[in-house]
Amino acid sequence: FSVSCSLMEGRSKLMEFPFVSSAHKNLMVDLVSTLENRFHSHLLPCSLPPDVQFYQNHSSTAQASLHITPATNNSPVDFVLGSWVHSELPTGGSLDITSLSAYLSSSTDAPNFVFEMIRSSPTMLVLILDLPPRKDLVLWPDDLKTFYEDTQLDTHRQALLRVPEVQPYFSSSLYIRTVSSPTAIMVRILTETGGAQRMEDIIRDHLDPISKQVLGIWLDHCACANRQVGEADQAYLRKRDALIRNKTLEIDLASSFPRLFGPEVANRVLEAIKEYFTV
Amino acid sequence: FSVSCSLMEGRSKLMEFPFVSSAHKNLMVDLVSTLENRFHSHLLPCSLPPDVQFYQNHSSTAQASLHITPATNNSPVDFVLGSWVHSELPTGGSLDITSLSAYLSSSTDAPNFVFEMIRSSPTMLVLILDLPPRKDLVLWPDDLKTFYEDTQLDTHRQALLRVPEVQPYFSSSLYIRTVSSPTAIMVRILTETGGAQRMEDIIRDHLDPISKQVLGIWLDHCACANRQVGEADQAYLRKRDALIRNKTLEIDLASSFPRLFGPEVANRVLEAIKEYFTV
Repeated sequence: FSVSCSLMEGRSKLMEFPFVSSAHKNLMVDLVSTLENRFHSHLLPCSLPPDVQFYQNHSSTAQASLHITPATNNSPVDFVLGSWVHSELPTGGSLDITSLSAYLSSSTDAPNFVFEMIRSSPTMLVLILDLPPRKDLVLWPDDLKTFYEDTQLDTHRQALLRVPEVQPYFSSSLYIRTVSSPTAIMVRILTETGGAQRMEDIIRDHLDPISKQVLGIWLDHCACANRQVGEADQAYLRKRDALIRNKTLEIDLASSFPRLFGPEVANRVLEAIKEYFTV
Repeated sequence: FSVSCSLMEGRSKLMEFPFVSSAHKNLMVDLVSTLENRFHSHLLPCSLPPDVQFYQNHSSTAQASLHITPATNNSPVDFVLGSWVHSELPTGGSLDITSLSAYLSSSTDAPNFVFEMIRSSPTMLVLILDLPPRKDLVLWPDDLKTFYEDTQLDTHRQALLRVPEVQPYFSSSLYIRTVSSPTAIMVRILTETGGAQRMEDIIRDHLDPISKQVLGIWLDHCACANRQVGEADQAYLRKRDALIRNKTLEIDLASSFPRLFGPEVANRVLEAIKEYFTV
């Protein structure tokens, strides 16, 4: 009883998104709920230990929630990962990262879903919203057409870039750029003139509808697409998925986590994530 | 005698770059010369028919020069392609495209070289400068490190983007985005305030040194790298090279050439290029 109770607390903790603005929290809660509702019958309870579902550093200046829901064997979904990280900055502000990603299994070759909002001040936001391909699209132009051209994904990126405060963002990691799709939304939003309120307006009026439309495209045209994948292609997907998961874990987490949470906590969390990231 | 004479005329015609500004022409001439000098002993004469080395539409409002120099069998280079296209626009201005690209053979897995300047007015320029990878860098992170990280390629893209008039450019073709590298320089330069003179200054002070540095990196660290490529990898390279060449020819030329030069001329030129593009 205590275990399942702690599991439900893990999800509640995730859904609190306690350190971000209301527009930011609303968007995150809506995206997580939409994904969970669509795959309700596929998703198993989160089985992460309680001290990985929620963790912090010794001084509690850095806190984080992590929620991983694996899917049943016959699901196209491998697992869904939601998280938030909050860390006070030496400068007085805070760094807040909220993310939601969904990884598909090798029974399908459709793209994954990645969503991440990174705020280092009330007037600065980096958004990464992408359906990263799981095959080399240079060799599979038909997949480029099916998942990216026919779905008109790029129109959403273009719409967002028409907002004056929105600029293209280039990750400092070349590997992150390499795994992203040709329609990846990677933008930096600066509202120094309009302040925190203008950022709220942009999240509510632009990021919110665009993110939901892109998630809708992923749900309808990728995650739920009926794909026939032969054995050779499954082996290829497993190899490529494994490489991407290892490298992104290394780049995203292994570098910053020890600094934020101390080596002991960081190691515990990374080891727990690795179990799901193994293909 | 008349044939070799016409061949030399073909190269002279290319090197005229007759419709572009002096800074633009100087840059093109320097890049072509640098590439030719480095591979002097490898390059064979251009064997394109004279009416493909230079061609125009019926009313002479569109003219173009094309120069393809194949390399000897033991060269890492497959062929080098230089060209310019000039077309008067119905609005009174003109469209000018100058380009230089070098394709490597399947004896090496190093990236190719692509350089293209597209001007549709004296104050608007699109630059594409890239070393497009020939392998899926997601699966070959060591190659990402060797050719893109260790060579500090991205510093040149970053330097160019610090010029106020320079903005990231996204090709309307998702396939073109897909074949490009994570350090691809794809920018749009607008000098409406500073006029044509400011564009000349930007070409001379920024595009010129940056383009030469990137070409230098390609010559020293890619084209002349000593790479051991096994038979399976050679087959993979041939397949991927062939796909990229066919698709880019289709996207770049097959769509716009008939409109600019009429179907008969366009077809003649495309058929001639295809012979070199076949892997």
